Amino acid sequence: MAVSTDRVKQILSHYSGDSVGVKTNLARLLNHGNLAGTGKLVILPVDQGFEHGPVRSFAPNPAGYDPDYHHQLAIDSGCNAYAAPLGALEASADKFAGQVPLILKLNNSDTLAKIDQPISAVTGSVKDATRLGCVAIGYTIYPGSGARNHQYEELRELILEAKDVGLPTVLWAYPRGAGLSKEGEQAVDVIGYAAHVSCQLGAHIVKVKPPKDVIEQAENKKVFEKFQIPTKTMADRVKHVVECAFHGKRIVIFSGGEAKSTDELLEDVRGIAAGGGYGSIMGRNAFQRPHAESLKLLSTVMEIFRKAA
Amino acid sequence: MAVSTDRVKQILSHYSGDSVGVKTNLARLLNHGNLAGTGKLVILPVDQGFEHGPVRSFAPNPAGYDPDYHHQLAIDSGCNAYAAPLGALEASADKFAGQVPLILKLNNSDTLAKIDQPISAVTGSVKDATRLGCVAIGYTIYPGSGARNHQYEELRELILEAKDVGLPTVLWAYPRGAGLSKEGEQAVDVIGYAAHVSCQLGAHIVKVKPPKDVIEQAENKKVFEKFQIPTKTMADRVKHVVECAFHGKRIVIFSGGEAKSTDELLEDVRGIAAGGGYGSIMGRNAFQRPHAESLKLLSTVMEIFRKAA
Amino acid sequence: MAVSTDRVKQILSHYSGDSVGVKTNLARLLNHGNLAGTGKLVILPVDQGFEHGPVRSFAPNPAGYDPDYHHQLAIDSGCNAYAAPLGALEASADKFAGQVPLILKLNNSDTLAKIDQPISAVTGSVKDATRLGCVAIGYTIYPGSGARNHQYEELRELILEAKDVGLPTVLWAYPRGAGLSKEGEQAVDVIGYAAHVSCQLGAHIVKVKPPKDVIEQAENKKVFEKFQIPTKTMADRVKHVVECAFHGKRIVIFSGGEAKSTDELLEDVRGIAAGGGYGSIMGRNAFQRPHAESLKLLSTVMEIFRKAA
Amino acid sequence: MAVSTDRVKQILSHYSGDSVGVKTNLARLLNHGNLAGTGKLVILPVDQGFEHGPVRSFAPNPAGYDPDYHHQLAIDSGCNAYAAPLGALEASADKFAGQVPLILKLNNSDTLAKIDQPISAVTGSVKDATRLGCVAIGYTIYPGSGARNHQYEELRELILEAKDVGLPTVLWAYPRGAGLSKEGEQAVDVIGYAAHVSCQLGAHIVKVKPPKDVIEQAENKKVFEKFQIPTKTMADRVKHVVECAFHGKRIVIFSGGEAKSTDELLEDVRGIAAGGGYGSIMGRNAFQRPHAESLKLLSTVMEIFRKAA
Amino acid sequence: MAVSTDRVKQILSHYSGDSVGVKTNLARLLNHGNLAGTGKLVILPVDQGFEHGPVRSFAPNPAGYDPDYHHQLAIDSGCNAYAAPLGALEASADKFAGQVPLILKLNNSDTLAKIDQPISAVTGSVKDATRLGCVAIGYTIYPGSGARNHQYEELRELILEAKDVGLPTVLWAYPRGAGLSKEGEQAVDVIGYAAHVSCQLGAHIVKVKPPKDVIEQAENKKVFEKFQIPTKTMADRVKHVVECAFHGKRIVIFSGGEAKSTDELLEDVRGIAAGGGYGSIMGRNAFQRPHAESLKLLSTVMEIFRKAA
Repeated sequence: MAVSTDRVKQILSHYSGDSVGVKTNLARLLNHGNLAGTGKLVILPVDQGFEHGPVRSFAPNPAGYDPDYHHQLAIDSGCNAYAAPLGALEASADKFAGQVPLILKLNNSDTLAKIDQPISAVTGSVKDATRLGCVAIGYTIYPGSGARNHQYEELRELILEAKDVGLPTVLWAYPRGAGLSKEGEQAVDVIGYAAHVSCQLGAHIVKVKPPKDVIEQAENKKVFEKFQIPTKTMADRVKHVVECAFHGKRIVIFSGGEAKSTDELLEDVRGIAAGGGYGSIMGRNAFQRPHAESLKLLSTVMEIFRKAA
Repeated sequence: MAVSTDRVKQILSHYSGDSVGVKTNLARLLNHGNLAGTGKLVILPVDQGFEHGPVRSFAPNPAGYDPDYHHQLAIDSGCNAYAAPLGALEASADKFAGQVPLILKLNNSDTLAKIDQPISAVTGSVKDATRLGCVAIGYTIYPGSGARNHQYEELRELILEAKDVGLPTVLWAYPRGAGLSKEGEQAVDVIGYAAHVSCQLGAHIVKVKPPKDVIEQAENKKVFEKFQIPTKTMADRVKHVVECAFHGKRIVIFSGGEAKSTDELLEDVRGIAAGGGYGSIMGRNAFQRPHAESLKLLSTVMEIFRKAA
Repeated sequence: MAVSTDRVKQILSHYSGDSVGVKTNLARLLNHGNLAGTGKLVILPVDQGFEHGPVRSFAPNPAGYDPDYHHQLAIDSGCNAYAAPLGALEASADKFAGQVPLILKLNNSDTLAKIDQPISAVTGSVKDATRLGCVAIGYTIYPGSGARNHQYEELRELILEAKDVGLPTVLWAYPRGAGLSKEGEQAVDVIGYAAHVSCQLGAHIVKVKPPKDVIEQAENKKVFEKFQIPTKTMADRVKHVVECAFHGKRIVIFSGGEAKSTDELLEDVRGIAAGGGYGSIMGRNAFQRPHAESLKLLSTVMEIFRKAA
Repeated sequence: MAVSTDRVKQILSHYSGDSVGVKTNLARLLNHGNLAGTGKLVILPVDQGFEHGPVRSFAPNPAGYDPDYHHQLAIDSGCNAYAAPLGALEASADKFAGQVPLILKLNNSDTLAKIDQPISAVTGSVKDATRLGCVAIGYTIYPGSGARNHQYEELRELILEAKDVGLPTVLWAYPRGAGLSKEGEQAVDVIGYAAHVSCQLGAHIVKVKPPKDVIEQAENKKVFEKFQIPTKTMADRVKHVVECAFHGKRIVIFSGGEAKSTDELLEDVRGIAAGGGYGSIMGRNAFQRPHAESLKLLSTVMEIFRKAA
Repeated sequence: MAVSTDRVKQILSHYSGDSVGVKTNLARLLNHGNLAGTGKLVILPVDQGFEHGPVRSFAPNPAGYDPDYHHQLAIDSGCNAYAAPLGALEASADKFAGQVPLILKLNNSDTLAKIDQPISAVTGSVKDATRLGCVAIGYTIYPGSGARNHQYEELRELILEAKDVGLPTVLWAYPRGAGLSKEGEQAVDVIGYAAHVSCQLGAHIVKVKPPKDVIEQAENKKVFEKFQIPTKTMADRVKHVVECAFHGKRIVIFSGGEAKSTDELLEDVRGIAAGGGYGSIMGRNAFQRPHAESLKLLSTVMEIFRKAA
């Protein structure tokens, strides 16, 4: 365990309602890897085999069919944490025990079925998380889904159960469902709203997609105009989302989305860092590149966040 | 803890079926703040970030993005209590521990999803309420919703669980759903009915919207006419609602509704006070105003209730 | 506690499969009030505020807004028991502790919502019943409802739980739902069937509406004709219903229905008594009359049953 | 308790995977009444008041309104067991304690409601069965119902719970539902399939309707033809059904169905006996006849099975 | 218990996240029968009486109506294990205790009902599995079904419960449902995806159908083309599926499907073996043949896998 910097102590102070156990595991996340102590985070998540299918996820870099590959990549690249579904962690956790903080993603969805309302299946448990030595649980909600209540209530149970064993919760918040237009899923007002709801639900770390310069709800349009809230640049929008997350008192990190060119990706990351985002969670953009390339990319991303710290 | 006045003792006597623990927490509510001992209450509720979204709720006074702001406002203004969802209380409760009675709102709803029948998600637990030092739990029902049974039964469980740890229940009763016209949601007969059902469900404090001079159910129209029950003034209507709440033996408080002009708002409050209402629960009308203005408004509202005590 | 008469002992012998605890509480019901020891019962039920709304229920005699009024009325009139939902009993039980046997009605329904299949919400628990000193629980089923299974199974759980603490169950059996015509809800074959099902479900006391001279099911029509079962008079029909209740080995009582003229009401009561009914459960016809009048009416009703005992 | 014959010992050996407790209760069934020790069974079931209504069931012989009548009839006629729903057993069990083995039918359905998918309500519990001194539980499944999974899974729980207290399970298997034609409900392939599924579900005794000379599923038609499986006579068909029940290693008994002439009924029974059926479960055909007649009929039926033993 | 070969030890090392108890039972499977120690498996599953009906399953070889027949066949043929539903194992397990590893199939489906979304009923429990001396539980999922979440979550509970008593899980993964075309159910991308999801869900052994040279999802088509992943031969396709199963770190076995000619069947098996499949699970193709023939076939199949080991 590391000595916490002032910044880490400050962040932890925003979680004063939580137990020492939960704060200890948050500290483990903040104090690991290349960004240790900066208050910034880069996390490697690998659930795409489940979410999009193995061939689409791993064919570009077939080493990724093996769960060990990702676990090792998270260690080698100095990420703050490695997040994956149950099966993958069960396959690799014993081999790499204690080398990188782990987040067990507790629910997942595949693309084989037609499901009316977006909702993932719970495929892991808090008990699995402690058995596998994880520092946090992960969970996905789809604000906008007609199955919202089921998800929020299930999450509530899991958060309580996780707290009981000192584990904080990382919440993947993806607005989606009959309540939203397709474009609205990444609208800045919707992402901000989703981040706020996530915080109210008791999430410790919120993961959203980078917000776009779109406003979804008519009521919100008036408000953005009336109070002249800027949404032009990624930095503007990230600033708004961070504000929605209890005035920045909750950790908000941003995904990279689909694999894209290194330049586009770094442009996004710079915006996120400039807007006060706490970091990135980067999957396909990392593990689908050849090994050396992915290490280099992650290193560059970390450097951007370090400078913004 | 304060010495209870005769009025407070009288109110507590109406809860003689409850444990000393529950009555102690009711006394804490009644004996705190500027209205302590009068039997009247003004409560600050801040769940609008969740219910209507953060930007609509906090852009008018951006200090409100920070949960600490509201907690401090409830203390500074001398409210009887501060009510909020889990995340907000977790963020601020430790810092302000013991300075104002807290009510944990156990269920909430956002506007991102299309839900067929009005129903909120349970986003907190009785265990959270005790962990955070609250004096009561809060819960929202939508009488008129096709999901009524689910809500009433969930509430029943929560009330029982809360009683077991000495916590009373504040019930937000918002008639809404396929069984009612839009106008009928605030009709005087519907609000009165909702208040009565709330009392039968075991609520200790009932929160309704100010009733309008409308009668929704045909059967009720005949009865109001036959027995010449007046509904013209706010005082008339509040009197009816209080009567429906076990002849005034249960505490009924009224919301302010959407942000409006100070004059309109105070006009409503005067009617509520004149009709025998126990007090107001005032959110947007308070925290969306600049700080000094909101203090002044709350002080005026309290003065109106003090005079009616 | 009173010495049981031979008739009371005989009735209790039909419940020989039950524990002494359950039989003791049945004896408390049978041995209280003006009809004590006769084997006949008159019960005051006040759930109409919940079921039909407060203004329709209490405007005719506004004293009824106060739950204490009904509790006192049940005592003053010498009823065998007073039945009400949770909130009302919580408000009055402590004040009048031990003066009249109480029945906690565990489920209730309001008219604000549009519910597809008739089904009440559970709004109280067996634990509440023992906490409030009740001698029985009450529950409403709607035979004929598509939600029948849910109700029967919930009842089963509650009966078991109640037996465990020595409480018998009073079952309100109201045929209603897509399986029945409107007229059929009070058809003599349907009421008889509902009474039989109630007994098979394990109810100790069954409450039905007075049967009308109508036969609902085609199959049954043939049987009534073939075996020349008379249904002309109320006494005929009540006799059939009592027969359906295990040959009269289960207590069956009849409601008064909507408020009506004293003459009509007493006519019904005389028929019920003549047909071997165990008694009446009379709400609106009692509490909506002025106090003295309601005492007189209840006294007359009791006298009719006493003479039939 | 009786000394088991070789045949009873042989039958019990097919249940070698079960506990001694379960086998003891199976032995109690096989060793009671006129057919004791033969390995054949005749059971009196009286759930028709619930399933078809009291007037249709008991008007032909009004003594049957009284649950005691049936219990006594089962004793007098020397049946192996008496099966009934909860209420009836609660009413009579204490009076006749220990005189005939009892089967508590745990789920039942009335004809008052329109239910989309055939499914009964659970109206009794294993705890009730032990409290009332029963030797087995009974449960009804409707293979062919869209609610099949609910039923199979509920049954699974009940079987496990019953095994824990040494009670075997008698399964009423009535194919019915959207998956089947009306005629197919008694088709020989369907009855055979239902019997097989019942055995796989863990039933100890399977009760089906007498199979008719009809084949429902197209795939099965080819198989019956290809392998020339005879289905002309009742004996042929019963033989097939018994074969489907683990090659006769599970007890399969057959119902009598609607009340019919004595000749038709005995013709069916002779076919069942000739085909190797373990016995009959006979309700309406027994209790709707005058008492002496029903004793005579049951005696004749038992004689047919005794000769086939 | 046998000495584990290096290959068995290597396979077990891929399950390092599991308890010694679970690995012990995996070793029992791998170290039994003709293929003991090779790391290859041939399993006899007999659930077709439940899944397709008894007459279609057992008429070709009527000895199969008796559960003992299959249990004995699994022993005689030297299979690694025998898998069956509850009833069949209850009937035979005591007689053959300890002679062949048993897998209790915990859920099953019949063809009598019309079920909207493919989903089996749970018809056995982990408690049954330990009571009957099994070395593993079996469970069927239908990826592609709209009831996917229910299945994945139920499986999760069962896996956890099974792990607690040291039992591994064999997962039958049959893509099926509204999300897939009929042909797509055996498409190579879908089978690969299903295998991957199975591994992520925590299955220890995955059972899929032999993949066909079809690609279902448009997105996948591009990927197979872009990265030139061969799918022409069975060996190619099996190789892909094994890769999807954590780079071969999870055991994947293949079914034989409908009864077919010996030549076709062996052709498939050779492809499976050549592609690196861990083995076959062969039901109808075994038990529907005459006894001697089925022994010979299974022996030939085992020989193919032994050579590939």
